[in-house]
Amino acid sequence: MTIVSSKSSIPDRLTALREHMRAKAIDACIVPTGDPHMSEYTSNHYKTLEFITGFTGSAGTAVITSDAAGLWTDNRYFLQAADQLSGSGITLYKEGMPGTIKIHEFLLQKLQLNSTICVDGRLVSNAWMNKLRRDVAAGNYNLCADIDPVGEIWTDRPEAEYNIVVNYPLQYAGMTRVEKIKIIREDLSAAGTNALVLSMLSDIAWLTNLRGGDVLCNPVFFSFVILTEETVLLYAEPDAFSPELVQELARDGIQLFPYKRFYYDLEKIKEITPVNSPAAVMLDRETCSELIFRSLPEDVRVVNEYSPVMRRKAIKNPVEMDGIRSAHLKDGIAMCRFLYWLKGVAAKAAETCSKMEITELSAAEKLHEFRAEQELFMGDSFEAIVGYGSHGAVVHYSATPESNVALEPHGMVLIDSGGQYLDGTTDITRTIVLGSLCEKEKTLFTAVLRGHINLARAVFPKGLSGANLDYLAHEPLWQMGLDYLHTTGHGVGHYLNVHEDPNEIYWDETDMIPPMPPFEEGMLSSDEPGYYEDDHFGIRHESLLLCIAGDTTAYGQFLKFEEVTLAPFDLEGIIPEQMQPDEINYLNTYHETVYSLIAPHLNEEERTWLREATRKI
Amino acid sequence: MTIVSSKSSIPDRLTALREHMRAKAIDACIVPTGDPHMSEYTSNHYKTLEFITGFTGSAGTAVITSDAAGLWTDNRYFLQAADQLSGSGITLYKEGMPGTIKIHEFLLQKLQLNSTICVDGRLVSNAWMNKLRRDVAAGNYNLCADIDPVGEIWTDRPEAEYNIVVNYPLQYAGMTRVEKIKIIREDLSAAGTNALVLSMLSDIAWLTNLRGGDVLCNPVFFSFVILTEETVLLYAEPDAFSPELVQELARDGIQLFPYKRFYYDLEKIKEITPVNSPAAVMLDRETCSELIFRSLPEDVRVVNEYSPVMRRKAIKNPVEMDGIRSAHLKDGIAMCRFLYWLKGVAAKAAETCSKMEITELSAAEKLHEFRAEQELFMGDSFEAIVGYGSHGAVVHYSATPESNVALEPHGMVLIDSGGQYLDGTTDITRTIVLGSLCEKEKTLFTAVLRGHINLARAVFPKGLSGANLDYLAHEPLWQMGLDYLHTTGHGVGHYLNVHEDPNEIYWDETDMIPPMPPFEEGMLSSDEPGYYEDDHFGIRHESLLLCIAGDTTAYGQFLKFEEVTLAPFDLEGIIPEQMQPDEINYLNTYHETVYSLIAPHLNEEERTWLREATRKI
Repeated sequence: MTIVSSKSSIPDRLTALREHMRAKAIDACIVPTGDPHMSEYTSNHYKTLEFITGFTGSAGTAVITSDAAGLWTDNRYFLQAADQLSGSGITLYKEGMPGTIKIHEFLLQKLQLNSTICVDGRLVSNAWMNKLRRDVAAGNYNLCADIDPVGEIWTDRPEAEYNIVVNYPLQYAGMTRVEKIKIIREDLSAAGTNALVLSMLSDIAWLTNLRGGDVLCNPVFFSFVILTEETVLLYAEPDAFSPELVQELARDGIQLFPYKRFYYDLEKIKEITPVNSPAAVMLDRETCSELIFRSLPEDVRVVNEYSPVMRRKAIKNPVEMDGIRSAHLKDGIAMCRFLYWLKGVAAKAAETCSKMEITELSAAEKLHEFRAEQELFMGDSFEAIVGYGSHGAVVHYSATPESNVALEPHGMVLIDSGGQYLDGTTDITRTIVLGSLCEKEKTLFTAVLRGHINLARAVFPKGLSGANLDYLAHEPLWQMGLDYLHTTGHGVGHYLNVHEDPNEIYWDETDMIPPMPPFEEGMLSSDEPGYYEDDHFGIRHESLLLCIAGDTTAYGQFLKFEEVTLAPFDLEGIIPEQMQPDEINYLNTYHETVYSLIAPHLNEEERTWLREATRKI
Repeated sequence: MTIVSSKSSIPDRLTALREHMRAKAIDACIVPTGDPHMSEYTSNHYKTLEFITGFTGSAGTAVITSDAAGLWTDNRYFLQAADQLSGSGITLYKEGMPGTIKIHEFLLQKLQLNSTICVDGRLVSNAWMNKLRRDVAAGNYNLCADIDPVGEIWTDRPEAEYNIVVNYPLQYAGMTRVEKIKIIREDLSAAGTNALVLSMLSDIAWLTNLRGGDVLCNPVFFSFVILTEETVLLYAEPDAFSPELVQELARDGIQLFPYKRFYYDLEKIKEITPVNSPAAVMLDRETCSELIFRSLPEDVRVVNEYSPVMRRKAIKNPVEMDGIRSAHLKDGIAMCRFLYWLKGVAAKAAETCSKMEITELSAAEKLHEFRAEQELFMGDSFEAIVGYGSHGAVVHYSATPESNVALEPHGMVLIDSGGQYLDGTTDITRTIVLGSLCEKEKTLFTAVLRGHINLARAVFPKGLSGANLDYLAHEPLWQMGLDYLHTTGHGVGHYLNVHEDPNEIYWDETDMIPPMPPFEEGMLSSDEPGYYEDDHFGIRHESLLLCIAGDTTAYGQFLKFEEVTLAPFDLEGIIPEQMQPDEINYLNTYHETVYSLIAPHLNEEERTWLREATRKI
């Protein structure tokens, strides 16, 4: 077997893989992005797609046959992928573009009947695999999901990294792990099941009141859980746990086992859940991997349900709600100090007609420093997006040393960033005016802000979901025949992942997995409409909205939102005459709240600036 | 067998029924409202519920056992049912009230195991019957659905009435029956079926371009259709068709058979559809009766789908869209002349501090007269609701000689009415201010109107449904903790039924049958938010909205609404300061449209009044 390292060229790596495939009688190899937990960010150990193609985007799938190779990715990565694949011999297939061949069509076209297709079954969900099975049924292929062919030829593959796992204190969690396990057992019982398999890392961190650092920006740790009526089996790296923590977990009914033992225990799950036999195991085919399914005995009854942990986790308890407010106060202080600094540098550059001494990367660094000064700050909640001018129009732009540009004292810079604090996770976008804007830019800045405000000020009875409210955020753009092509809002974890299902906000539920639930008191969602003009500018206004109780009247319990993010929207971008009085009132009230809460924590110059930045319009 | 007539008392009728049940070994008899076509209004022949209970409401179900009798109805009819049932020995069960026993619980409580329950299988849907079967499974009952026990003891039961059936001219229909049959056959084929059973009268009238007069206010005729790849079998009363019409239908591929032969032909449907065997029959379990299902051979494959006719019918063609505009112009002329007259009488009464010489019933009569003067007017599209003062708060109020009151020159009268014109069906509600209103009434009048306007001015891309937009109509009330407990909008037929599925507008899709489809160009829906204060007043503002094409931009095809209803909203009820500028602009533009289109058709006094009633605010 030829083995290759990261020092060899992509064509050499492909040659080695094809030789390995020939030896193993594999006709096609599918290489996805992802890890065994369907995490949003992939750690180095699992970057098999990057190793074999050179493509570094966060979403993509490669297919390699004996004489063809393709990479499928979405429009966020068309430019980047074209660049990174050049010279590799791998063809780029642009997903969602008319005429682009689909992966299953490619397979049916390239392979003969009865061929063998291989994919690492840890990295794809059972639902994904089932869909592939249906899509290529005509080929009568042998679908093999229990080997990792790229891993087998990769000599210098980084080890999976395990960082220390720590207790998440009750003063921030608001609920003990024993209480959480109890309600989840009740959920299982109500669904007629007696075991639950968890593989989503945020679910496991929430349930166990533990936090780690194994995934970029997400304080989670590689692990699985099998929860039964009597036991909680936690599979993780034992060395990451202190002996005291292991003891504490044991006292709370959680037994720690090595991560790799998980699949083995799945096979004998009926012995683990002896109370009712046959065991009825609840798991979610959309997030549990193909390998998890394959590891379960065939005669186990599987109940395919979205994890009850995901649902419970989305509804923050009163302690978490207080933590959210506290974290956002600190984040607001950092943001306001940053904005004062940024505006000051822009003003100085304008005076001297020079570029600013700030780049996209250095601005992100500076913002990080302001956040790092705050209590309980643990790190960024995602890699900050600082997009100046036309870079703002690239929705998932991430500045690199190559793309990095200096800011200039005109136009706008879009800054989407967030912090992890022990008492909560933040996510905020402000579009900052660095100098003069034209009328059109201001009109769009105002329209996007109106959408943001109209969603934030919604009041509604229990029962409505994000699909019922999303129109509000889109309306000002739709009235002009314009739009933004991303969801309006996502759920946010509690000192956990910045993107957490299921409480999204978007009108189109057709492909929503999991389905959108009704809002409940304690749900935290982002409100982030935008507008992007290719090669020109990008605008996005984002705060987090905490769903809280409104009045209870003869018509029942009403709900509303508290805009917990605390930083001014740039008044230099707004045309007040294009706003409705209700919208102006909301903005003025919000800005007054920002000032009254943040000002006491600023120095005098900053405070003077904030007074002006939050003035009534 | 004791037989009874409408002259005997309800207790006597119940005694006769129980005797009949004993003779037939029936332990419980379920008597629903409805006809074999799930029509909204029940014709006299099918009023078995009214005959056996005395209850005249449009929705209710009675259950009669040897020693108990109950009637279930909803909150619209609690007062009326209590009144009509008093002294009958029948207990009123208030549906939806906490603690009310459900029908299946009642049956399980009253009946012994293996009892026989009987219901007229023509009057309940197969879906309803399946639910009953599941709900009472514990009783192991014999459910009998092929007899009509109340009908069997009812001596003076009115005959089913058949009125003349006429051609609906192409100049109004916009599409020949041959073309319609062709596209429906394509729909069937696409769904892998080769036959369609239709029992909804509006579906049949649309498909065949025929109209009748068998159901109150609905220009439909009692009929069934079996449509196959080769034939269209229409089952109706042959005497209702002229020989010329029968010939014309035959030329177009429609064979006419007697109404009663339908169930017989269902039994031999495999002979009717010989091309593919076994036949795959599409029908909708929610609207097709239990008897239709029972009549199909057991080995026929039934595909349960919402009728493709319903879907096609909801999307009006260009000729129908023009007809809708024309019908609404005439209806607007009638409404404006009526409003001028009503306002004049109110003003005169105010001068003399006397009651008006108008009652709820006479106002409805007068409005009918104004409509009857218009070209192509065929009758009212439903029984007009004229509710003065507190009567306005009864959502489905219908004035009777007993409830009828004189209008007075103060407060508001809610008038919900509509007309059938050969070129379209109208449905309009205006709440008319007859004298002084207090601040609270005006605030609510304004809030409801703001909701109406915000829905009417929506602009959105293809894909959104009424569930995505409904928030707009509710918002001003929700912001005050208030609400209205009915849907915001319903579909409207084309010289057909005033209530037609599936294009409803309501946020809660949970129990929507059929499910709400996305809006399409040509859909006609009502926009009718309201507010009702028990014992005080009712407000509702309703126009019909025709979905039309908006701009096509880089973001795709946008849709918007044309408010086709043309009559002023009463400016005396509005507090302009409580409206947003966008709302005021919309109202002013709408009122200017009303004036410019309607004024040329009015006399000078009416025109002067309309100028003032549509003035800019």
